[in-house]
Amino acid sequence: MAPYSVILICITLSLLAGSSATQDPYRRHVHRPCKKMVVYHHEILYNGSNAQNATATIVGEPDGANKTSLAGPIRFGDLIAFDDPLTDDNNLRSPPVGRAQGFYVYSNTKQPASWHAFSMVFNSTKYKGILTFAGLNMILTPTRHISVIGGTDDFFMHRGIASFTTDAVEAEVYFRLRIEIKLYECWKLLNP
Amino acid sequence: MAPYSVILICITLSLLAGSSATQDPYRRHVHRPCKKMVVYHHEILYNGSNAQNATATIVGEPDGANKTSLAGPIRFGDLIAFDDPLTDDNNLRSPPVGRAQGFYVYSNTKQPASWHAFSMVFNSTKYKGILTFAGLNMILTPTRHISVIGGTDDFFMHRGIASFTTDAVEAEVYFRLRIEIKLYECWKLLNP
Amino acid sequence: MAPYSVILICITLSLLAGSSATQDPYRRHVHRPCKKMVVYHHEILYNGSNAQNATATIVGEPDGANKTSLAGPIRFGDLIAFDDPLTDDNNLRSPPVGRAQGFYVYSNTKQPASWHAFSMVFNSTKYKGILTFAGLNMILTPTRHISVIGGTDDFFMHRGIASFTTDAVEAEVYFRLRIEIKLYECWKLLNP
Repeated sequence: MAPYSVILICITLSLLAGSSATQDPYRRHVHRPCKKMVVYHHEILYNGSNAQNATATIVGEPDGANKTSLAGPIRFGDLIAFDDPLTDDNNLRSPPVGRAQGFYVYSNTKQPASWHAFSMVFNSTKYKGILTFAGLNMILTPTRHISVIGGTDDFFMHRGIASFTTDAVEAEVYFRLRIEIKLYECWKLLNP
Repeated sequence: MAPYSVILICITLSLLAGSSATQDPYRRHVHRPCKKMVVYHHEILYNGSNAQNATATIVGEPDGANKTSLAGPIRFGDLIAFDDPLTDDNNLRSPPVGRAQGFYVYSNTKQPASWHAFSMVFNSTKYKGILTFAGLNMILTPTRHISVIGGTDDFFMHRGIASFTTDAVEAEVYFRLRIEIKLYECWKLLNP
Repeated sequence: MAPYSVILICITLSLLAGSSATQDPYRRHVHRPCKKMVVYHHEILYNGSNAQNATATIVGEPDGANKTSLAGPIRFGDLIAFDDPLTDDNNLRSPPVGRAQGFYVYSNTKQPASWHAFSMVFNSTKYKGILTFAGLNMILTPTRHISVIGGTDDFFMHRGIASFTTDAVEAEVYFRLRIEIKLYECWKLLNP
């Protein structure tokens, strides 16, 4: 058998392996993210008297509850819309690097825990684009993981995991999260 | 040509095919899932008098409707938060293998059909981790398909399809779904 | 070294590269979508007197607002459920090629901008299946990008980007979007 035929077989196998060939089933192992970032997420919840600087407000609530206070310690059924600033450090007054916009709903009957779906809009020198998240924020768990389900521009088609840790809670009005974002799937659109 | 150069070419081609090379466009054919599981999803909807054992409650509703009964036969505009137990069989009293937490909104003006977004939290000997879902539950269709859009821990970065079939409906209070989950994209994080 | 061993090594390397081997980190470059389509999305918002032909309705709202009119010019906190027809052209009366069902919530405190999560159900000769979307609709930006996070049937496991442009606004009742959908990840399930 000539070396040339060997090379041909190799090319064919390589192309098959990497392109649209059937791979069955699809499994992927990774060691580390392709992008990584940390932001602080600040929320000031509307309580009936802070309309000037509130960044979030109750828009849905269970039977018997209202829109100016959380529904008891468990808060099950409260639904909150938010437009929260993101900063590079834990200072609410630092210049925002982006905003987190979307909603969450308290969805646990035994403890305060919420289901979040939102996007982060970045418009800094470092990043321009949007990342979209969905998942469960089990507030009482020290670190909890939320899925990054898509993105645009600098985050075109990205996916990954965001890890939330509670960084501060003041009364039931100010909440601060530290969010570590690890993107494991990074796409790039060439000559769009 | 020496066999060594042939091997070198092969290595190069193989790496190109499998790594970050441009593949344009991206298509993938699969025969079967990388993971498969079945759970039963039980919901007891709050109706004004079952607060003790309700697992779901209306938190948003259309004009003229209320939080203790569904908005007519079509229910368009009712938004429900839930914390529903998941079991391995169709018995509400079986030990839960996890919980489904999130919400759905009735989003069809002609028939009862709802748009769901939620996470399943598993904490059994079989699985630990979260799967997150989004999609349309066309209740009157025998089997309907919802997207699995992400996951954590044992389900790190997973994607797939969940198939819902209605298993029981009692009055407008107890609902049971059989959910078959087929994951077609299974990632693993090594030495995280 | 015999050619046979060379072939064996090649086969092994090719399989490793294309299948479940560790690829670290995961990056992908694409030039163009695997599928592309354009639809027009029509919405008639319920205003208290158009129940006959409304396709969308307010189901959650901030403190002090109501379900028959948007909450001021910014609308922050209004949550809308919808069942909107999709057509191939910009004529509301054209035969629908599908429906968009889900919700959005106004989630910006400075300008009208909404966070959307919904599915498009297609049942035409061209396409059968569902696409699911999530992301931010910054209404005042000429073109804004929303993530396609999953799909079923003809759109099995698909992902991509949808670009929204406002095509018409009449009073605060009729809204029309032109949506260009570009799918960059196209899967096919063989012999399901």
